Amino acid sequence: MNSGNYPSQILENAVKEFSQLPGVGRKSALRLVLYLLKQEKNDVLRFADALKRLSEEIVYCTQCFNISDTEVCDICANNKRDHSTVCVVENIKDVMAIENTQQYFGVYHVLGGIISPMDGIGPDDLTIKPLEDRVNSGEIKELIFALPTTMEGDTTNFYLYRKFAKLDINITTLARGVSIGDELEYTDEVTLGRSLINRLPFESSMNI
Amino acid sequence: MNSGNYPSQILENAVKEFSQLPGVGRKSALRLVLYLLKQEKNDVLRFADALKRLSEEIVYCTQCFNISDTEVCDICANNKRDHSTVCVVENIKDVMAIENTQQYFGVYHVLGGIISPMDGIGPDDLTIKPLEDRVNSGEIKELIFALPTTMEGDTTNFYLYRKFAKLDINITTLARGVSIGDELEYTDEVTLGRSLINRLPFESSMNI
Repeated sequence: MNSGNYPSQILENAVKEFSQLPGVGRKSALRLVLYLLKQEKNDVLRFADALKRLSEEIVYCTQCFNISDTEVCDICANNKRDHSTVCVVENIKDVMAIENTQQYFGVYHVLGGIISPMDGIGPDDLTIKPLEDRVNSGEIKELIFALPTTMEGDTTNFYLYRKFAKLDINITTLARGVSIGDELEYTDEVTLGRSLINRLPFESSMNI
Repeated sequence: MNSGNYPSQILENAVKEFSQLPGVGRKSALRLVLYLLKQEKNDVLRFADALKRLSEEIVYCTQCFNISDTEVCDICANNKRDHSTVCVVENIKDVMAIENTQQYFGVYHVLGGIISPMDGIGPDDLTIKPLEDRVNSGEIKELIFALPTTMEGDTTNFYLYRKFAKLDINITTLARGVSIGDELEYTDEVTLGRSLINRLPFESSMNI
């Protein structure tokens, strides 16, 4: 089926919008739009309204740059959390993943990306300056780097490390090792090697 | 990553709407929404508006039940097309596919589905009554059944055939045979068998 020949301009517009989403081609977009056409009018209006609010009402937390409905996000506004520990992550999906562990009680700093010269993303495109301001305020005792283990992640780690190493704060990173439930034979060599080098007292694995 | 723990209600609502689309799970929905968040505000508003118009302004052609921006669709409103030949199809994707061949100059009738007892779809759920009205108006000379070659398609074909066979109209169906470009050894037996039974004078294949 070629493109074009849509029986309706309105249909074509909706297909065009959907097909601009990543991983959605013209055919899938048409399928989604035809699906929506079969739904209740109010359901589609609610969808449209959700998008409208997404574009108009969502803000970024002024402290950690997490997505938020309010000027300061729920995590930063929570007094029970440890504001002296800041976990530095690439994006809000990482915040959600860490929050889901229910093992972290500090706050975050969302960089909004990682340094990637290939994609033209430099330090100035990220929220590194505000992170410096937070660190310089003197309230932060530990920075946890929780960036991806890719070349870009390592570059960003190193860039941040050089910025903050001279200051009197702890800089830590996530432990790397064999995933819980993984078979050793299927674990990649680098991970297995690192987990040997950074081996832990047995008691610590028992939570005792 | 579990569900829940969205940093923003607005974000969560948008994710929920996307994840109700067929083939889109929670994770893909989040990915799409985060993509939209990175786009220009006006682009997202345009997306929202396209959906709003989709739900509010699109109508079905009162003659053929194709999707349309106007009461009578462009095809039915076109006087140059042969209104005495009606191609009966399942849905608007089929209309688009046939239009793209640029080989058809009649009009359409969109059933809006096919008879499928397993899915609880009977003749009354389709636009069969309006098709009868069109046929009874006496203006139709040929009905072309262009329904899928599935059990449901055959059931629908047979149901329609029994309704219209006694009338003085031609009832035809799409030719079945080996696809152009297909190797014989990879063609399924039923198709190959039918293409032998319905073999054509050689000249007709040369368009002479």
